Amino acid sequence: MTDLDRRIGAHSFARLLGEWRPPDGRGLASALADRVRLLVLDGRLPLQTRIPPERELAAALGVSRTTVAAAYDTLREAAVLHSRRGAGSWTRLPPDPAGGSDVSPLFPQADRDLLDLAHAALPAPGAAMRRAAAAAVHDLDALLGGHGYEMLGLPALRAAIADRYTTRGLPTTPDQVLVTVGGQQAIALVVAALTGPGDRVLVEHPTYPNALACIAHHRARPVPVPMGPHPNGTGSWDLDLLAATVRDAAPRLVYLIPEHQNPTGAVLDDACRLRLVELARRTGTPLLIDETLVELGFGDHAPTPTAAHAPDSPLVITVGSASKALWGGLRVGWVRTAAPLVRRLAAQRAAIDLGSPVLEQLIVARLLADVEQVTAERRIELLAARDHLLDRLATTFPRWRPSRPTGGMSLWIELDEPQSSQLSVVARRHGVLLAAGPRFGIDGAFERHLRLPYTLRRDRMDEALQRLALAWQGLDHAAPAVEPEPVAVA
Amino acid sequence: MTDLDRRIGAHSFARLLGEWRPPDGRGLASALADRVRLLVLDGRLPLQTRIPPERELAAALGVSRTTVAAAYDTLREAAVLHSRRGAGSWTRLPPDPAGGSDVSPLFPQADRDLLDLAHAALPAPGAAMRRAAAAAVHDLDALLGGHGYEMLGLPALRAAIADRYTTRGLPTTPDQVLVTVGGQQAIALVVAALTGPGDRVLVEHPTYPNALACIAHHRARPVPVPMGPHPNGTGSWDLDLLAATVRDAAPRLVYLIPEHQNPTGAVLDDACRLRLVELARRTGTPLLIDETLVELGFGDHAPTPTAAHAPDSPLVITVGSASKALWGGLRVGWVRTAAPLVRRLAAQRAAIDLGSPVLEQLIVARLLADVEQVTAERRIELLAARDHLLDRLATTFPRWRPSRPTGGMSLWIELDEPQSSQLSVVARRHGVLLAAGPRFGIDGAFERHLRLPYTLRRDRMDEALQRLALAWQGLDHAAPAVEPEPVAVA
Repeated sequence: MTDLDRRIGAHSFARLLGEWRPPDGRGLASALADRVRLLVLDGRLPLQTRIPPERELAAALGVSRTTVAAAYDTLREAAVLHSRRGAGSWTRLPPDPAGGSDVSPLFPQADRDLLDLAHAALPAPGAAMRRAAAAAVHDLDALLGGHGYEMLGLPALRAAIADRYTTRGLPTTPDQVLVTVGGQQAIALVVAALTGPGDRVLVEHPTYPNALACIAHHRARPVPVPMGPHPNGTGSWDLDLLAATVRDAAPRLVYLIPEHQNPTGAVLDDACRLRLVELARRTGTPLLIDETLVELGFGDHAPTPTAAHAPDSPLVITVGSASKALWGGLRVGWVRTAAPLVRRLAAQRAAIDLGSPVLEQLIVARLLADVEQVTAERRIELLAARDHLLDRLATTFPRWRPSRPTGGMSLWIELDEPQSSQLSVVARRHGVLLAAGPRFGIDGAFERHLRLPYTLRRDRMDEALQRLALAWQGLDHAAPAVEPEPVAVA
Repeated sequence: MTDLDRRIGAHSFARLLGEWRPPDGRGLASALADRVRLLVLDGRLPLQTRIPPERELAAALGVSRTTVAAAYDTLREAAVLHSRRGAGSWTRLPPDPAGGSDVSPLFPQADRDLLDLAHAALPAPGAAMRRAAAAAVHDLDALLGGHGYEMLGLPALRAAIADRYTTRGLPTTPDQVLVTVGGQQAIALVVAALTGPGDRVLVEHPTYPNALACIAHHRARPVPVPMGPHPNGTGSWDLDLLAATVRDAAPRLVYLIPEHQNPTGAVLDDACRLRLVELARRTGTPLLIDETLVELGFGDHAPTPTAAHAPDSPLVITVGSASKALWGGLRVGWVRTAAPLVRRLAAQRAAIDLGSPVLEQLIVARLLADVEQVTAERRIELLAARDHLLDRLATTFPRWRPSRPTGGMSLWIELDEPQSSQLSVVARRHGVLLAAGPRFGIDGAFERHLRLPYTLRRDRMDEALQRLALAWQGLDHAAPAVEPEPVAVA
């Protein structure tokens, strides 16, 4: 089965481990074993990954081979590793003492007892969705006679998306729009088209985990630019640092989330947007602007879309999605950029997919026509949910320092101890799914941070916080955690 | 804009050119220019690709630099190339004398005058689709409260797909099924998971163009194994040759279409399926079995699914799709393999996409429950359409030698002249979209072949053949063709 397995090199593995050494330098082997177990349970070290031989890892970490050997022994005993003599060691899931479960661990069912705080995602806007779906089934009639492949997107939807940009202050024509299967595919198409193996992609740090996964998937390398502080605890961009990094690292692409940045919630101001576009023009570096959360601002003032500073340039590529504003189950996203680049992306798309589903496109076209009304209610609900969660956190975790975002679906919290991964593992045993801080960073950063969505129904949110409190209290006494599967994030 | 462009190296370019030299060795420059223009118009050489400098191409082709310079000059005059001094030359589209058009050239609308023989795809089965869509909108109600991300697929659909395999003689459980966005994404996920840059993937030759695109997208390399002859003109597999190629080339993956092979229409017999699986076991080489067309056989006897010879092995990975049997506009496909590999593919999926749309999955679950009845009518129609096309071809093109496939949607035709690319370019001017033979091959092979779907309505099929006859007659006298865009294939 070796052929089907993946490997991780000693230096990548060392980076993934992050800061694992105990401050007093004692108990190195058990600290190393603990960290590896955390990475497996948290999903950052995928299952059935062949880890480096003891000798190589010892060299990469600058510790003795005996230390690594002892750590591997511990992991084998805990059934986190299995080894075959002469062949190597692979990660695996420790057995689940609670017995088998048919819950899909990647995507637990909403009606189970598991409280999902790994996904920042809302239920569908029920009434509007039912109306749109029923109408779309009617619209579908006229298209059943065609072959159904829509590589660029249905004209009706491309027009609706273009109209929405135009309304937001960014004049757009339908030929500047490519409809994709969700925002993630939009990101993947752009990364695939504009980067090659080894190329650098500049990212905010922290950033959206699935964008990091996409960059890794295409064998490009993320270059992190740290987010700075902001009075409301979200974050800010240091444009000077960003420009210097573009100059020094010469990335092929800059991936940014200027609207309710995921996970910090930061919003890029108008002046900085202009500077960003000037930087792109000056250096010829394309910007990939992720606007997934743009429709979910709580205030009246929405910044000008970044692309409005260069509406016809292929150097600004905007990605949008119906998943957060409308519903994740729709899987409709899009790219907006210069028309020739749209056509080029569409032509390259056939390698990975032959177009978006027709019916979903019809539904989104109907919903987008009315998007401000459809989202009005959920923006009010989200604001109230944010305030409720902040209230509860102040009582339950007075020493945690949460952000106070002006839009989006989640808080970014600075914990009082660097225990985010450990908390996520223990919380899982209390029936709460978390995405630990390091999921949003590179090389194990953000162990002191946690993203907490406020998208659960209020009673379930309260229940989740109670369970989190138990998990947090139990952290030091936690027995080796045993969990059924890594957690996906959205 | 250099940063956003792609390049093609001199040796890749030379391979793509295939056999371009005139038999008498005269008029080299104009023959070279003609071939480059064909490749651009036919879509095999993408737009805005930077082609090699004259000196490098001359070396790769073994011709004088003067020859290449003259060819490039011709291409610049014809507006197929544009150059910037010191920067290089890029492919572009020659201007369209008919003026701009808002037709999506990648996916022309069915109601236009363009007759699409590039896609082997049927309209939706109208009545069944309407019923299933209406019912699915009802089913959707129960799921609107969840977040809608379904990375593995809706349980109801996974169960329906598993049941269908079980009925076909391949016992399958839902946890052996991963739902994807169409069969193409299923292929892409497997190629991404099991190959790395430079790895070899064995393919039949000819094969499905979008699989070749997928292999190239992941920077793997196709290793072609020629299809042999068959009395009905489709094709056959030489298992000895295939085994020898696996031994010599040590591919990481073997991609095969044993059911109504695309484009030849060949069907792999039961004995060969068993040998194939034995080969996979013996060499540890995984098989990627594309069953996209499996529901569209004309006869009563269906061969045992290949995976039935190793139902629980991750070495046999089967890909299926609703696109051909049901409708392309649904974009639902799946992978069937060992459950651990299913989970691994799902975990890696987040890099490119966050799951399949919920409503489409509900529709397919309903349609699959009844798939034999839903497809019964179209299998009868397809058989009649095949015979009708064979009849007409015998009259219109008596010197072409078409296959007589026992299922699927298209003929594979041996032409009496190696003019497939040229025909596809000229046919476009007559309002017929074709996928030329070389789209199904590597390095310019199959210039003497053409895939012709029989999926158009009969009156439109007849009209298309009349136009093709005109195009074929006009081949030698064809003026330089000017076309608005490359053609996609499905």
